[in-house]
Amino acid sequence: MPSLRHFSVQLGLACALVTLVGCDGDRVTLNPTPSANNTAKEYPPTGKTKTFEITISKFDWEVAPGAIYDAIGYNKTIPGPPIEVDAGDHVVIKLTNKDPDAPHSVHTHVVRFPVGSDGVMYGVAKPNETVTVEWDAVFAGSFPYHDHAGMGGETGGIRAGLFGPLIVHAPDEVKAVENVVMLSDFDVTRFKLLPGVGIGDAAPSDIGEYRGGHQYMHTIDGRAYPEWSPHFRAKVGDHVRWRVISIGQEFHTFHVHGHRWIGADGVMTDNINLGPGTYSTFEWLEDNPGDWLYHCHVPDHMEGGMMGLYTVTK
Amino acid sequence: MPSLRHFSVQLGLACALVTLVGCDGDRVTLNPTPSANNTAKEYPPTGKTKTFEITISKFDWEVAPGAIYDAIGYNKTIPGPPIEVDAGDHVVIKLTNKDPDAPHSVHTHVVRFPVGSDGVMYGVAKPNETVTVEWDAVFAGSFPYHDHAGMGGETGGIRAGLFGPLIVHAPDEVKAVENVVMLSDFDVTRFKLLPGVGIGDAAPSDIGEYRGGHQYMHTIDGRAYPEWSPHFRAKVGDHVRWRVISIGQEFHTFHVHGHRWIGADGVMTDNINLGPGTYSTFEWLEDNPGDWLYHCHVPDHMEGGMMGLYTVTK
Amino acid sequence: MPSLRHFSVQLGLACALVTLVGCDGDRVTLNPTPSANNTAKEYPPTGKTKTFEITISKFDWEVAPGAIYDAIGYNKTIPGPPIEVDAGDHVVIKLTNKDPDAPHSVHTHVVRFPVGSDGVMYGVAKPNETVTVEWDAVFAGSFPYHDHAGMGGETGGIRAGLFGPLIVHAPDEVKAVENVVMLSDFDVTRFKLLPGVGIGDAAPSDIGEYRGGHQYMHTIDGRAYPEWSPHFRAKVGDHVRWRVISIGQEFHTFHVHGHRWIGADGVMTDNINLGPGTYSTFEWLEDNPGDWLYHCHVPDHMEGGMMGLYTVTK
Repeated sequence: MPSLRHFSVQLGLACALVTLVGCDGDRVTLNPTPSANNTAKEYPPTGKTKTFEITISKFDWEVAPGAIYDAIGYNKTIPGPPIEVDAGDHVVIKLTNKDPDAPHSVHTHVVRFPVGSDGVMYGVAKPNETVTVEWDAVFAGSFPYHDHAGMGGETGGIRAGLFGPLIVHAPDEVKAVENVVMLSDFDVTRFKLLPGVGIGDAAPSDIGEYRGGHQYMHTIDGRAYPEWSPHFRAKVGDHVRWRVISIGQEFHTFHVHGHRWIGADGVMTDNINLGPGTYSTFEWLEDNPGDWLYHCHVPDHMEGGMMGLYTVTK
Repeated sequence: MPSLRHFSVQLGLACALVTLVGCDGDRVTLNPTPSANNTAKEYPPTGKTKTFEITISKFDWEVAPGAIYDAIGYNKTIPGPPIEVDAGDHVVIKLTNKDPDAPHSVHTHVVRFPVGSDGVMYGVAKPNETVTVEWDAVFAGSFPYHDHAGMGGETGGIRAGLFGPLIVHAPDEVKAVENVVMLSDFDVTRFKLLPGVGIGDAAPSDIGEYRGGHQYMHTIDGRAYPEWSPHFRAKVGDHVRWRVISIGQEFHTFHVHGHRWIGADGVMTDNINLGPGTYSTFEWLEDNPGDWLYHCHVPDHMEGGMMGLYTVTK
Repeated sequence: MPSLRHFSVQLGLACALVTLVGCDGDRVTLNPTPSANNTAKEYPPTGKTKTFEITISKFDWEVAPGAIYDAIGYNKTIPGPPIEVDAGDHVVIKLTNKDPDAPHSVHTHVVRFPVGSDGVMYGVAKPNETVTVEWDAVFAGSFPYHDHAGMGGETGGIRAGLFGPLIVHAPDEVKAVENVVMLSDFDVTRFKLLPGVGIGDAAPSDIGEYRGGHQYMHTIDGRAYPEWSPHFRAKVGDHVRWRVISIGQEFHTFHVHGHRWIGADGVMTDNINLGPGTYSTFEWLEDNPGDWLYHCHVPDHMEGGMMGLYTVTK
């Protein structure tokens, strides 16, 4: 195994060329870099309006090969489509509810909106109705949007799959490879088919090494286990930004192997706590090639599917 | 629905008049404002002593209409009475234990006290005994006080209702509308009557929309669901301070709709993680009228009662 | 009970002598002191290599008197031996796996290592094999090391006892009394004997005041309850540093009675949230004599054993 010091010397050659890195003698400090997102700043309006048309419906969602979920979601995908805008943009969402059985909405976090766009008492679409909600995305960051109206308030809709990411880019952020991660917990009673567990007429199938007691219950972007969850990729030298949003029933952590970052609060870490409905944006300048795991560090959740691969090439 | 931009222009008129707000061109940055509480500062003694007489007893506590809890509490209320002082005050608590069955105490957090006032091995009141404990409240903030002596150490007493808020005002804090929130988890085995669930001879009653599997188990200030939990109120232009203290069995988050704040750590958020015995003080200058939910974002806890209303009028 | 103010005056005499403390008039601000660990700084290489030989094996571990755990661990102890180095050191671990039944590894956090030392796909020791992994410990702090290869990925090995502390001293840190705390959760199915609970032919034994429903499941440094967990000790005037690392199945908090500290994020606290695989280093200048509890503030975890004593003498 080659020494890490040899590795550092190789990277040191890039010192004069890369403006984003600091030089400490003949060493390059590539990782971590402080976050480019000033989370405490309000940005002025851009004058631009971005409109998103989103439809809620019921569909089968494949959490992993053969694991079929009786889902309700935005635009037939879990998570829902990214609502990606620039800080200061005005956002208009035209939301159509094709679920015949319950009202639904789209509620979000941090950005400004009047109570009419809150998605609880106002801004709710009854079955076969379309409503419009509007947000002013004047704070940068990564936030969840989710149902807050149907099936026991917000909770039944989120369990069924009604959540997605709101991404607000800061004007001064570094252009980066962006990895959007939504941590969510699935409801065993909504599965139509679950590998390893017989449901109705379906016989149980075999389970693999990580398929523990919570199998297929904990997901990354609606998918479980590394062969099915997002396979993120970057190259050495890339600026890499992670947008991690937790939106399920449980408390999670988020850990990436072989890397570390400075949180907006100034603390160095490689594993952060995320309760339901919380979120974190962080970044680094990539310097460590290999196939790395990212996962929740709660053993049951990791065993249950909340893990994936991040591959860095030279 | 009116555009948010129209709303911003209206607020802009107040720019020259309101000293607390920043002006960004013709816009007013009302929300958030940085916390006025310097949480890392020790304040000098004021020379004042504030004395509180508190009695522990057993009583029936109505967690929600018809949900009757077999409680033990301070001064027959859950949470116990606010111990509200100025930073630097000396605090004397005369604690009388009228629970005939167990010793109890009053332990607190962050502020200074000698081991004799710790409420574990010293400062414990046996049944029908009165003890005196003393604290020097030289750090500002919002903290729990709670039993740490009876019924399995601290745990049985907290479950029964023996907790309350300690509020220490900083001398330099802005005068504000203050909302004190204690998040707590109730023990299903201590309920005498529980709506929707038959207990003993009592038949089950109907349950409402949010009454899920954890019904009446998770409370705000000892009360469950918006029709019974505190209905906080403010006006546009008010400085609003939240003192959120978690003191139960579970990890919670605390989310307020349509608002956001800068934590003491500098991170913008609208939803924070709070483990048992942790606490957070934050504030904003109110700018968003409407009826807003505040709640724990854990679905089971929200369904179980940990939610309430915050109404902002113009 | 003597007044706290008398206590402060006594400490005031030390003002001119102790360079670490601040003086506020005739008062001494002993506690808290800001952390000496700059968690966001990368330290240059020292040029030194420190080598550790670690063997994995199966053994009986006494979680508390009479509570016998069917353990797998590093060097026959739980937690494993401290890997204690100076920031900038190169670390070499020679890991021998004497568990005949499963592959195992040593994965760690924050410090730099190439993917060959990750302990997941590479750097894994099969039964009766020895592997070498190397880290560059260029970030100071307190981190877990743990198995990430055997028995359901990382999770079975951690449950069995395969975890330990990595301690990286910053060159500019104050010399201190150091208390290393690893919070872990034990698996009831791996106990061979459990006081109070009959297992196989063993009859249940008596249980004490704190032996609640989760008894012996939650531990400090592999041991449960104050008569068996580490009894930490310091003197007034000592600089005391805590290195708290959480590595089990559950979310915990860590609270020390009668004290408080400023986290790396600048927030004053006496109780912090720690999810699985997270960690915190903090410190204070000791000023409060007595026998103090330290514990997780989750009632079930405290009742289950996650508590101990910290004694401060004058």
